[in-house]
Amino acid sequence: MNSDSNPPVRRRIAIDMDEVMADALSRHLDLYNRHYAAAVTREHMHGKYLHEVVPAEHQEQVHQWVYEVGFFRDLPVMPDCVEVIRELQQTYDIFIATAAMQFPNSFTEKYDWLARHLPFIPWTHIVFCGDKSVIAADYLVDDHAKNFIGFRGEGILFTAPHNAQVTGYRRVANWREVRALFLEGGL
Amino acid sequence: MNSDSNPPVRRRIAIDMDEVMADALSRHLDLYNRHYAAAVTREHMHGKYLHEVVPAEHQEQVHQWVYEVGFFRDLPVMPDCVEVIRELQQTYDIFIATAAMQFPNSFTEKYDWLARHLPFIPWTHIVFCGDKSVIAADYLVDDHAKNFIGFRGEGILFTAPHNAQVTGYRRVANWREVRALFLEGGL
Repeated sequence: MNSDSNPPVRRRIAIDMDEVMADALSRHLDLYNRHYAAAVTREHMHGKYLHEVVPAEHQEQVHQWVYEVGFFRDLPVMPDCVEVIRELQQTYDIFIATAAMQFPNSFTEKYDWLARHLPFIPWTHIVFCGDKSVIAADYLVDDHAKNFIGFRGEGILFTAPHNAQVTGYRRVANWREVRALFLEGGL
Repeated sequence: MNSDSNPPVRRRIAIDMDEVMADALSRHLDLYNRHYAAAVTREHMHGKYLHEVVPAEHQEQVHQWVYEVGFFRDLPVMPDCVEVIRELQQTYDIFIATAAMQFPNSFTEKYDWLARHLPFIPWTHIVFCGDKSVIAADYLVDDHAKNFIGFRGEGILFTAPHNAQVTGYRRVANWREVRALFLEGGL
């Protein structure tokens, strides 16, 4: 994006929220296991989504939870996420890009979550979208490879159980690896 | 954006909401004139914002209205907007890109407004953002030239009183001119 600019401008990283910054899966598993007195763990989900590893008659409820008011409000922050994003901001322009349009109930919850956990991200750098091909950035850190379709920068796949078998992208398993890639890896 | 694609893909137009699709200024003027028993019109605002043409002691209230719950809910649709966007969709990919992050109270109001007036726009093609340089599109139709800074496509300025004296961009005065530019002008 900036190869012909003079002076060089900062490269831009767009960062997904769910399963990258916010641990939505932990909450989803907790809701499921408590509701059905089950004991599903991440280890059961290698290469699959939660709705794919539960009995067919539970799938509708599993989908339903994500649309309910409150689901996104108190999601735990992924380990090291806040510190690494703060460090990345020294060198890169950081935008948060989340497919919130799929869950209109989540707008305020996601906005408030960001304000609470990452108050150093200005409102100008938050994007609620659907199709992420609309994001103009050099990198997109996301757990869904489908979001890299049409994206004109480089997609960096953030490891989650459901994407365990996806290949074809640089991959980071956690925020320490994000730091290593962007700040120590010479990107 | 697509010059090296084969087969050619559809060009993308991003469209701003306030003062382009939704007539926020009419509502703002109505609130002001009723509250202060005034008679400010668009004609008084050539090259200026509303807060610039009212007495200094009214400016804080003028700013305040935009942040209040309900401001965006029932804004009138600009003439011909719905029909022209529907026509543009035949030829272009249409994204709605609004700086909603500045007004967190507006999220649901803007989402519902779009669902009511333009139900043919899928949620995947709606973007709530701040800095519009994050939008990847070939064209951005917007009333604020500041939103063209850093935008990598062409900014098309939609005429509003406040931008009357802005130069340097192709300009459209209404939705019939948008139709002429994109569907009859050989863009």
